[in-house]
Amino acid sequence: MPQLGLLPGRACVSLLSQLLRPPHGACTRAIRSHSHGTRDLSPQQMVVREKILDMVVSCFKRHGAKGLDTPAFELKEMLTEKYGEDSLLIYDLKDQGGELLSLRYDLTVPFARYLAMNKVKKMKRYHVGKVWRRESPTIVQGRYREFCQCDFDIAGQFDPMIPDAECLKIMCEILSGLQLGDFLIKVNDRRIIDGMFAACGVPESKFRAICSSIDKLDKMSWKDVRHDMVSKKSLDPEVADRIGDYIQRHGGISLVEQLLQDPRLSQNKQALEGLEDLKLLFEYLTLFGIAEKISFDLSLARGLDYYTGVIYEAVLLQTPNQAGEESLSMGSVAAGGRYDELVSMFDPNSHKVPCVGLSIGVERIFSIVEQKMKIFGEKVRTTETQVFVATPQKNFLQERLKLIAELWDAGIKAELLYKNNPKLLTQLHYCEKMGIPLVVIIGEQEMKGGIAKLRSVVSREEVAIKREHLVAEIQKRLLES
Amino acid sequence: MPQLGLLPGRACVSLLSQLLRPPHGACTRAIRSHSHGTRDLSPQQMVVREKILDMVVSCFKRHGAKGLDTPAFELKEMLTEKYGEDSLLIYDLKDQGGELLSLRYDLTVPFARYLAMNKVKKMKRYHVGKVWRRESPTIVQGRYREFCQCDFDIAGQFDPMIPDAECLKIMCEILSGLQLGDFLIKVNDRRIIDGMFAACGVPESKFRAICSSIDKLDKMSWKDVRHDMVSKKSLDPEVADRIGDYIQRHGGISLVEQLLQDPRLSQNKQALEGLEDLKLLFEYLTLFGIAEKISFDLSLARGLDYYTGVIYEAVLLQTPNQAGEESLSMGSVAAGGRYDELVSMFDPNSHKVPCVGLSIGVERIFSIVEQKMKIFGEKVRTTETQVFVATPQKNFLQERLKLIAELWDAGIKAELLYKNNPKLLTQLHYCEKMGIPLVVIIGEQEMKGGIAKLRSVVSREEVAIKREHLVAEIQKRLLES
Repeated sequence: MPQLGLLPGRACVSLLSQLLRPPHGACTRAIRSHSHGTRDLSPQQMVVREKILDMVVSCFKRHGAKGLDTPAFELKEMLTEKYGEDSLLIYDLKDQGGELLSLRYDLTVPFARYLAMNKVKKMKRYHVGKVWRRESPTIVQGRYREFCQCDFDIAGQFDPMIPDAECLKIMCEILSGLQLGDFLIKVNDRRIIDGMFAACGVPESKFRAICSSIDKLDKMSWKDVRHDMVSKKSLDPEVADRIGDYIQRHGGISLVEQLLQDPRLSQNKQALEGLEDLKLLFEYLTLFGIAEKISFDLSLARGLDYYTGVIYEAVLLQTPNQAGEESLSMGSVAAGGRYDELVSMFDPNSHKVPCVGLSIGVERIFSIVEQKMKIFGEKVRTTETQVFVATPQKNFLQERLKLIAELWDAGIKAELLYKNNPKLLTQLHYCEKMGIPLVVIIGEQEMKGGIAKLRSVVSREEVAIKREHLVAEIQKRLLES
Repeated sequence: MPQLGLLPGRACVSLLSQLLRPPHGACTRAIRSHSHGTRDLSPQQMVVREKILDMVVSCFKRHGAKGLDTPAFELKEMLTEKYGEDSLLIYDLKDQGGELLSLRYDLTVPFARYLAMNKVKKMKRYHVGKVWRRESPTIVQGRYREFCQCDFDIAGQFDPMIPDAECLKIMCEILSGLQLGDFLIKVNDRRIIDGMFAACGVPESKFRAICSSIDKLDKMSWKDVRHDMVSKKSLDPEVADRIGDYIQRHGGISLVEQLLQDPRLSQNKQALEGLEDLKLLFEYLTLFGIAEKISFDLSLARGLDYYTGVIYEAVLLQTPNQAGEESLSMGSVAAGGRYDELVSMFDPNSHKVPCVGLSIGVERIFSIVEQKMKIFGEKVRTTETQVFVATPQKNFLQERLKLIAELWDAGIKAELLYKNNPKLLTQLHYCEKMGIPLVVIIGEQEMKGGIAKLRSVVSREEVAIKREHLVAEIQKRLLES
């Protein structure tokens, strides 16, 4: 499987464990960001981002996805009633006349709107784009109010669990390829959650609210979540405790089989459907060779309203050895699920287009890779310049300009200093600093002889090349390197 | 110079002339867009966009630029007093608590803010990103309220006109490479405009307002612009007429030399500086081999407040032969100029960082290329899938899943149908429709023989390959193709 060339293969694991530790004390690194929770990406960061995005997109393309782009803002009404409690985090545009607009909150709802609007019944698409959420920014964990998402979704009516399994395969390929260390993908099913709620005695009107409570389990203890359910959402404490019993369970296919025997759950039609689909899913995951990366986890809820079936979330792990304690799961770096009803909400005839998809949280991945590189002292070139045009001579700008235009026109990446009379040493120093491999040197002597000197910056070797062969010689050298 | 492979080299010129005609009658094509002036990009459009952006970015990198990214929104106060009359078009975010924010109007002001904020004194950067303007959308001309810009800028104190000349060279490389037909870059200088205003008797307080009027010359006749100056901006009609005399002039270096002799202009210090810089600029443009593409045009004003020196704008041309009339210039597809004071507006100590840059109006270029491709009936593949995994057998999903995972893990782009029992014909038809070159066929017979059939979709030839050699054989075939 293709891997990210940026990271040292032997990436020290204890380092990762340090980076992934929750933000207490040591983690308060000062990262330059704006007070309004966004940040600029410097050229160094852009190189890292570009490599990560290339890797993610090439995986999406490997799975046959088409590209799609939608606007940064949608009609406000398109975004309402899709995100549950998170709707509060949507950025609205000011009413300056015309329609009421909001910045997109994710790439999933715009995709569903696109399918409905264009009456598309089947599509495998990827979308890389920014989304905006008015969260209180916790920058150390790589959470910003503006962030980039990489989504892959499969829309269409197909035989059960095949696209769902492919989504999990893609998550595994990307997380392995990025070499972020060990990871685990938690899987659950909304139908199992709802069935569990029904079996535990949660009134149906409270299903979504209790689901939101459970979704907070990655940030809060069970005690606090239970309090949230009982005090804020007026759930019967006994019911809450019954839920508590279930959501502590996690495991592989054997847990699915065990719950299929659970008297309360297996009598619930929805839960039964969900469990049977999970069983099939695990079969496919085994064929894909990724079953050991997947954990059926009844505590996984996912906050968004639109999920209807399988849901999943990938977390990076620290093994006991690394952390010196029990295996610890850290923030989610990828997530997704099945949403079979969302498209129909945008269709005037409520035509259904079942969908399943995933989103890679590249922002958090950027943070991890960036910090790793900083600690390993890895340097990245921020430009791709191949040749520098230099002169030891005063008043030689005209010749340099003529020569560099020749290089550009031949497709060669070239630079010169924007000075009439730069010193040769300054010019050569610039090449070393910027990692430019080749220098063309011209002066009066070279001009008279109809030649140019070609210098390798690393070896400092210089050879004289006939002026008319210069471009070809450079191209040859670049091909060889 | 690298060229865009997407367009037929022999791109029919009369067609272009038709596409570029102003929107009367024939041009009212229905392009699917949202009523709020934005649009989705379909997979077909994304392929075109990706190729154009790749081409533009590779040119920027050829000239040694680093990447940079800034957030979609800035503090509202950062954007005020930068855009003159166009400030009305800025999208504000709703006040939901916290700072007042606005969507960026261009990529230049965020770049200047970045330089000041990070105390960067020297930088050559490119930025590809969306910007937003509340304009009344005229979709036929490729104008939307959300659009993509590709910017290249050089910041730093250098010897005069060298970076400026490189910006014009870049515009030429990109417009030639995109094969959009003949083009012309109009050049002027804010100092010449101001000097001309002073020489004609415009009160200094009205310089920017009269400049905005002149900027409308590409959309309005001189008569209407004159009316705007005299009635709306209370300019003395005689002064307006004197301006009218100047702004009808355009030409090459000879016009620069002629105006250097103009008694009124040459006595104005600013105008003299501008003219002398233009003379130097033309010298460099000649060395770059692009002087014949550049026209010194006194009617070019550029609306934005922040320009301080050379300004330029590229337009696509119809030659007299094509249009059956006088050479006609159409909408601008690239523009830019020098802005030496903008960075200091963001710096608490008003430290100056001179800048010059350009912006490619890719949205309009997309429209042109897209329409051209439609008319030529060119098809683009929207996926990159290399191999399809098929079976003639019922109940063969498990084997297909195992095989495709093997391909994915080897980095091969592969698809299958998400069905338990698809028909072979349906599977082969899908490959033909999607342009997938290779099919792997497995069934019971092949399994027993330890082989798979590898089929070329175009030639329909099938060969049996040992199962353990399959991946290597596919990789070999893909390398050869």
